[in-house]
Amino acid sequence: MNKLQSSNSPVFRSERQRAIYTVIFEADTFWGKAFDLALIGFILLSLVVVVLDSVEAIYLRHHSTLYRLEWLCTLLFTAEYFTRLYCAPKPLAYARSFFGVIDLLSILPSYVALVFPELHSLIDIRVLRLLRVFRVLKLTQYLHEYRQLRGALQASSRKILVFLTTVLMLIFIIGSLMYVIEGPEHGFTSIPVAVYWAITTMTTVGFGDITPQTDLGRAVASFMMLLGWGVLAVPTGIVTAEMVHRPDPKPTTRTCPSCMHEGLGAKDHYCRHCGTALPDYQSDH
Amino acid sequence: MNKLQSSNSPVFRSERQRAIYTVIFEADTFWGKAFDLALIGFILLSLVVVVLDSVEAIYLRHHSTLYRLEWLCTLLFTAEYFTRLYCAPKPLAYARSFFGVIDLLSILPSYVALVFPELHSLIDIRVLRLLRVFRVLKLTQYLHEYRQLRGALQASSRKILVFLTTVLMLIFIIGSLMYVIEGPEHGFTSIPVAVYWAITTMTTVGFGDITPQTDLGRAVASFMMLLGWGVLAVPTGIVTAEMVHRPDPKPTTRTCPSCMHEGLGAKDHYCRHCGTALPDYQSDH
Amino acid sequence: MNKLQSSNSPVFRSERQRAIYTVIFEADTFWGKAFDLALIGFILLSLVVVVLDSVEAIYLRHHSTLYRLEWLCTLLFTAEYFTRLYCAPKPLAYARSFFGVIDLLSILPSYVALVFPELHSLIDIRVLRLLRVFRVLKLTQYLHEYRQLRGALQASSRKILVFLTTVLMLIFIIGSLMYVIEGPEHGFTSIPVAVYWAITTMTTVGFGDITPQTDLGRAVASFMMLLGWGVLAVPTGIVTAEMVHRPDPKPTTRTCPSCMHEGLGAKDHYCRHCGTALPDYQSDH
Amino acid sequence: MNKLQSSNSPVFRSERQRAIYTVIFEADTFWGKAFDLALIGFILLSLVVVVLDSVEAIYLRHHSTLYRLEWLCTLLFTAEYFTRLYCAPKPLAYARSFFGVIDLLSILPSYVALVFPELHSLIDIRVLRLLRVFRVLKLTQYLHEYRQLRGALQASSRKILVFLTTVLMLIFIIGSLMYVIEGPEHGFTSIPVAVYWAITTMTTVGFGDITPQTDLGRAVASFMMLLGWGVLAVPTGIVTAEMVHRPDPKPTTRTCPSCMHEGLGAKDHYCRHCGTALPDYQSDH
Repeated sequence: MNKLQSSNSPVFRSERQRAIYTVIFEADTFWGKAFDLALIGFILLSLVVVVLDSVEAIYLRHHSTLYRLEWLCTLLFTAEYFTRLYCAPKPLAYARSFFGVIDLLSILPSYVALVFPELHSLIDIRVLRLLRVFRVLKLTQYLHEYRQLRGALQASSRKILVFLTTVLMLIFIIGSLMYVIEGPEHGFTSIPVAVYWAITTMTTVGFGDITPQTDLGRAVASFMMLLGWGVLAVPTGIVTAEMVHRPDPKPTTRTCPSCMHEGLGAKDHYCRHCGTALPDYQSDH
Repeated sequence: MNKLQSSNSPVFRSERQRAIYTVIFEADTFWGKAFDLALIGFILLSLVVVVLDSVEAIYLRHHSTLYRLEWLCTLLFTAEYFTRLYCAPKPLAYARSFFGVIDLLSILPSYVALVFPELHSLIDIRVLRLLRVFRVLKLTQYLHEYRQLRGALQASSRKILVFLTTVLMLIFIIGSLMYVIEGPEHGFTSIPVAVYWAITTMTTVGFGDITPQTDLGRAVASFMMLLGWGVLAVPTGIVTAEMVHRPDPKPTTRTCPSCMHEGLGAKDHYCRHCGTALPDYQSDH
Repeated sequence: MNKLQSSNSPVFRSERQRAIYTVIFEADTFWGKAFDLALIGFILLSLVVVVLDSVEAIYLRHHSTLYRLEWLCTLLFTAEYFTRLYCAPKPLAYARSFFGVIDLLSILPSYVALVFPELHSLIDIRVLRLLRVFRVLKLTQYLHEYRQLRGALQASSRKILVFLTTVLMLIFIIGSLMYVIEGPEHGFTSIPVAVYWAITTMTTVGFGDITPQTDLGRAVASFMMLLGWGVLAVPTGIVTAEMVHRPDPKPTTRTCPSCMHEGLGAKDHYCRHCGTALPDYQSDH
Repeated sequence: MNKLQSSNSPVFRSERQRAIYTVIFEADTFWGKAFDLALIGFILLSLVVVVLDSVEAIYLRHHSTLYRLEWLCTLLFTAEYFTRLYCAPKPLAYARSFFGVIDLLSILPSYVALVFPELHSLIDIRVLRLLRVFRVLKLTQYLHEYRQLRGALQASSRKILVFLTTVLMLIFIIGSLMYVIEGPEHGFTSIPVAVYWAITTMTTVGFGDITPQTDLGRAVASFMMLLGWGVLAVPTGIVTAEMVHRPDPKPTTRTCPSCMHEGLGAKDHYCRHCGTALPDYQSDH
């Protein structure tokens, strides 16, 4: 999200537009910060309303209050949305951006449900307002960490892809195998269901809504469980062993008597810095 | 917790106060150590009493004995608490410190239950006495490890926060989605319940008290399980691959032209086996 | 899988054979790529057919269509298999290679089921066609990552073996112990079943189809759970602590005496900021 | 286990004793190896007998055969045990060693069950014979890896202890808390049971035999699940981020134009090897 300069450039149609832009899209002035805080407040309020509205006991007692609060928030967000369209230098760019779509999706369901009452349950997609918190928090100061993380993911994206596709293929094949072995009479009613079971097993979640009953099925399940857990356990074990295994090139205090270079390997015969022959190394390791 | 000097400084009101302080708050003298051992003994005894008292079979047979033991401990701890208040140079500082509060909370419920018998179940908060063990063990010698751990956490606190908030948002959004998809007739009775399910799934705990029944719900659940497990599996895989990828202090094939010793470090200037000066190391790493 | 040169060497019987080989086994020409894409398309189609055919609702409505699509794919794959045998320089080498066997296994069940209708369920082994996707994707460009991974596994294969055999022995012994403690009346009907339970517990899957009921059984189960989780948790904790403990290329306080630039590397000879020669670095690390 | 020299030292009473010792305790001669292989064979046979004997279907059909095989093995192991006592230079040292005790425990239950038939179920402790496989495999060649692993554990033993005691305290406290919150009517019948539940939750096993029913209980459970999973997820995330975070001191190809030293930091102004001023660094990072 490029940040437009808030100087008085020809990008804005009027001074008033620029002023409103500064408050709504930016947070460097007092009113800008105040607007952001108020917005977070109303987003959280609308989320609490959505959550409470879903609990039957609370719904029965307070629905009218929650209903009015919900419409208050919806109207405020609608006003905010149109104001953003108004003061953004390129309204279409905003409307098509990720947060622009989120902002629209967070007010639309309420209006749709007015017209089509059967879609009332879809109103719970109001919870997508949660995503708005990301933007309002102006996570620019976290951008450094996110770029790091994104860079790490991109650098390893090929490895990740190879790893994930291998895992998915294994899951698909073993799932189908279990469908053949156990069959619908034991809960594995179709290949998709068996694959769902295979995922719960490999990821070590293990709901237990479907479990193998036959001996062969349990044997295959055991193999899959050891695989899913082993993928985590074996590398951590190797990493630890490797870290212990490299004691030599690092933390010894062995010092060359000639050039005083420290940290020589315990098994070295010559200083790798100046070439002098080294005396025997005494240590407790 | 600053350690006061136990020399005869004007900080103590009398010699007797200083002597008692040395025994109760410190553990450098024979009596100090003896007091600590006795205290651990009574804390553990009171814990065993609490635990046994909760098992119905044992409660029915031995409740009066346990009741008397419990009051013995409570009275001892009360005496100890007031003694600490008496001999501490700054009694209010102690009463407001973390362990001061713990000490008070571990004796209060017993008295409260005398006055209000309905709060009897709260007596099990006596188990907070467990926290007292931390202090009695004088974990000063472990302070180095704790500072390390705390330093590691503080250095990475921003990353941890970003990571955790992302995870919580995902959990909240997918939980709400499952509430819409599955609905109360399948166990997802409200958004809080759905979020609770989402947590059991992402953390791979998988109780199984609530499970998705619809195909779309199971698909979303599969995505969530792979995510929760993948967060653990993908980094360990990358870390292992990276460790292999950086062969420096060990598996290079750099060979000394003089003595043919292999596996020299990429940065070495002299052969650590025979001392000959080494030519520059050419490699693709 | 060695790649044969597709020059006009005496390895091919005729020009036509070589031309077909280029299209089927290789993907460097336009037709070669087109063939691969078409093949992936039909493999995925046949997989979708297999999966849909297993869902009872869909089976009842569309079985004849799925049946015809399945035979279309089978006939195409049969034609492809014989073409491969025809144009490969060494047909027997292909037929005995891993992918040769897979290709055969993916067409055989359909014919077998024609002759022996009772083996109809085995037709779901058609899902092994999934493995063909590996070859068709010509994973040669991923060969570098696979060699890395395989090299890492081989280098550590002894450690992995020791680790896995220890885990399996623990599982076997504790499983048998639980069989003795809990017994068949609590679900642990035999030692193999108890070992299956032990695997679900150590790998933290925890289906819950079998659970310990006795106090001693639950105590042993607790020990096993902490072990299975601890194997993951303890090394990651140590690794993190170690990483903090070795501050070298970053958080030292080494300061350049000339320009006062901080955080110089412990091994640097010159200040990377102003170029001044640096005195030796004294530290306790 | 110290290895005695098998030269003709005064440690052996006779030449025959020494010869038998070479065969039974060592594996450097042909007969030594042959004995070991035979022993592994009989241990595995006896294990298979124990396992099969526990499966009811097989027990009913083949019990007499299994019974005779079991006694064959028991008698062979008894003969072997007494032979070991005879030929060991210090019989008491052998009898009190770890493997000496295991060897005795693997034959004793069968005799005990002859005298006290009610202890028949204890015969399954015969599975401890599994531990004998460790010794018979003469895991001396794996001693290097075990010493490494043991060294790693010892070096970090303080950290491990601190970590584990913290985890156990948390489990105990939160378990007791859940006992107070949920209570026996929801399955948390006593504090030990609640602690057992806490362990299944923190280690992410999640059997589901006991689950929280109240809102507050589920909230506490959610916290515990995120903790148990987070202990694994947060460090792996940090480790990955740290690895990415150190791009400078390692994998750049920036080269000093003067001394050709490679791998200079992207932000350095002077070569840290020879001191020459560096030109601007062009890169895509």
